[in-house]
Amino acid sequence: MTGSSTVHSGIIVKKYGGTSVATPERISAIAEGVAQQVGGVRGLIVVLSAMGKSTDELVALAHQVSRRPAGREMDLLLATGEQVSVSLLGLALQDRGVAAVSLTAAQCGIRTDSAFNVARIQSIDTERILAELEAGRVVIVTGFQGVTTDHDITTLGRGGSDITGVAVAVAVGADACEICTDVDGVLTADPNLVPAARLWPEISYEAAIEMASSGAKVLHPRAAELCMAYDIPIHVRSSFHAREGTWIRGSDDMVMEQAEVVGVSSDRKIAKITLREVPDEPGLAARVFQDLAGEDICVRLIIQSASSEGRGRITFVLDEEFAEQAAHLVEQWKSAGIASDGIVDHDVAKISIVGSRLASTPGLAARMFSALAREEINIDCISSSEMKVACVIAGEHVERAVRAVHDEFFPPEPAR
Amino acid sequence: MTGSSTVHSGIIVKKYGGTSVATPERISAIAEGVAQQVGGVRGLIVVLSAMGKSTDELVALAHQVSRRPAGREMDLLLATGEQVSVSLLGLALQDRGVAAVSLTAAQCGIRTDSAFNVARIQSIDTERILAELEAGRVVIVTGFQGVTTDHDITTLGRGGSDITGVAVAVAVGADACEICTDVDGVLTADPNLVPAARLWPEISYEAAIEMASSGAKVLHPRAAELCMAYDIPIHVRSSFHAREGTWIRGSDDMVMEQAEVVGVSSDRKIAKITLREVPDEPGLAARVFQDLAGEDICVRLIIQSASSEGRGRITFVLDEEFAEQAAHLVEQWKSAGIASDGIVDHDVAKISIVGSRLASTPGLAARMFSALAREEINIDCISSSEMKVACVIAGEHVERAVRAVHDEFFPPEPAR
Repeated sequence: MTGSSTVHSGIIVKKYGGTSVATPERISAIAEGVAQQVGGVRGLIVVLSAMGKSTDELVALAHQVSRRPAGREMDLLLATGEQVSVSLLGLALQDRGVAAVSLTAAQCGIRTDSAFNVARIQSIDTERILAELEAGRVVIVTGFQGVTTDHDITTLGRGGSDITGVAVAVAVGADACEICTDVDGVLTADPNLVPAARLWPEISYEAAIEMASSGAKVLHPRAAELCMAYDIPIHVRSSFHAREGTWIRGSDDMVMEQAEVVGVSSDRKIAKITLREVPDEPGLAARVFQDLAGEDICVRLIIQSASSEGRGRITFVLDEEFAEQAAHLVEQWKSAGIASDGIVDHDVAKISIVGSRLASTPGLAARMFSALAREEINIDCISSSEMKVACVIAGEHVERAVRAVHDEFFPPEPAR
Repeated sequence: MTGSSTVHSGIIVKKYGGTSVATPERISAIAEGVAQQVGGVRGLIVVLSAMGKSTDELVALAHQVSRRPAGREMDLLLATGEQVSVSLLGLALQDRGVAAVSLTAAQCGIRTDSAFNVARIQSIDTERILAELEAGRVVIVTGFQGVTTDHDITTLGRGGSDITGVAVAVAVGADACEICTDVDGVLTADPNLVPAARLWPEISYEAAIEMASSGAKVLHPRAAELCMAYDIPIHVRSSFHAREGTWIRGSDDMVMEQAEVVGVSSDRKIAKITLREVPDEPGLAARVFQDLAGEDICVRLIIQSASSEGRGRITFVLDEEFAEQAAHLVEQWKSAGIASDGIVDHDVAKISIVGSRLASTPGLAARMFSALAREEINIDCISSSEMKVACVIAGEHVERAVRAVHDEFFPPEPAR
């Protein structure tokens, strides 16, 4: 859509994450910002996460009354977190004389399927939202949640507020969806690990999706996918100052596309599972990954080495939270003769480089491996795709690895 | 209905207050009790308040972002309190293998008017509740809240969970509504003030309403009124043990009706306002109480003394929380020439005796006044009705006053 002159709706969606609404002071600060912005646009929709650690506190409460809290009642519990933050922002805006209305997902008709804890948005009935905007009110919407056709409350899983923000932006045809967060935008690396990390003024949807999927925390990959499908630009920016962040949009003529590598990302919250001596029979790998899918375990990377003497090895990487569940499956696979042994390794990390021309530019992967070798960091396994090269390494080396690889592709500027 | 053989629905409603669900441990204890009871009845509905101080904490949060938090967004905020407690009880029951479903007021169709913060229930759509009971589930309902026809969330004001419990009991035609609380039932006085206070096995609706209105905290008076209108017995009992408490029901043949005085109650959270030199003109008193009603201020007692020289005095007692609002009105009345002066006194308390035969039994009021006189406690003003005699006294004397009056009507039993 870049360059095409679409009709502008004049509606902006702003989504604030948990750290941006962590305290009453932060919520008041957001109210100040919104109060200043409200005259300049036709309609303003604000999507909020729960305050800071409140979701964790609700989870802890649930664990005090139940050994395995989950399902419908867990979602009803967690949904209170966003209901609190939207109510408070509504009160804070009204206190400043700004007309505002706070809506739950049920009240603004965010319909999902009934997969509690990991629901997917199916549709948004925009009638109430548009009527409230028409009446001159700022509309504040609970992120992270939805409602089934039976009026049961659902939640969208981790990062769900991003998806709510984007889905609302798509539904009302917003001019843009702002993701207001605790970093300045999309950077070439995590600034906590690499202080010299650089901010991109704009990147493509595809690069944003790969960056997000490989551990950069700025945005949920599904949110970027949705925006790409509907050509809604995303503006990832700080909720602590008014400077521009990173625009994510169609890539027709972007400067950044000249860049070979867009960023270096890492993820320590993973675990690696290696199945040894897997018989070389058709269907065994399928069985393994079907079993994992059956327990709703997302697998991040799969590496299957060539078999020797009829027996092979299957290694896969998953989010650390699923490691325990997967370990139970490993025992089943051993009993079923699928593997002689299964090793769960928690002390691993993943480091990735992302770039839209990675596959078409020879030597980029080699430069990454060389940078790691110079630091004497051993590469455990490698996976690459069109836009990404990922290496699994020992967890203890991850910070040094990110700095070394970042320096390779983004050499420190000479001191002036 | 006493004695008439109505059809029994086999449905019991149990309402638990804030102290009964204050901690995860208490919620687990309720789950244990419900798990034991569930086989013995056809249907079990549990209505819950918010956990302990959680409503106070939400109010404190609101005051951090707004100078005058109120209205629609305040109710949306407060409603999260009960949503948390019902979710947790649902999880706790499911963890014990008991099928249960937690419903918000919106989900079980508790329709109210749109008077935010002080809404009144208009109807309950029992379809979902009855379907869930039919499916063999314990139904857990959020107390204190409702929903308007526009899907906006409302709250019912103080003691609202009692009203929810009773309204649900009426709507489904329950056999009884249990009010599970932190006292053993309806006692002749607050056991914290009078350790020798006695438990009534049963009392009439009328006596319960008067006791509740005069400061006994066991039950919201509107809840007792509703049960009286629909002949639903209430069982006020402890949520900490299984012993029977007090049954509140039709008074046809009750033992307690032989009693002259049912109980002694007191209330310190009141303020007294005295308007001096009010001209003896028609309509001035009406103006005063219309102004109070216009600000939704409930007046507990009105004492207008005979006027002398064309000017009289109007005294009224209200809940302490309304004192500040009323003080603003006093200034307006002074400007308008309605009173020369208005005195707001916070250091007062009300002590009442309640009994269904008070008016028809000569000398009971005199015995109350004598008991106070023997303690040298001055009576500031007196108001009496068919079933109640209330005295306003200095706040500091209230505990001594309650003990003295209780001893008068319920003499301590000789030590054995």
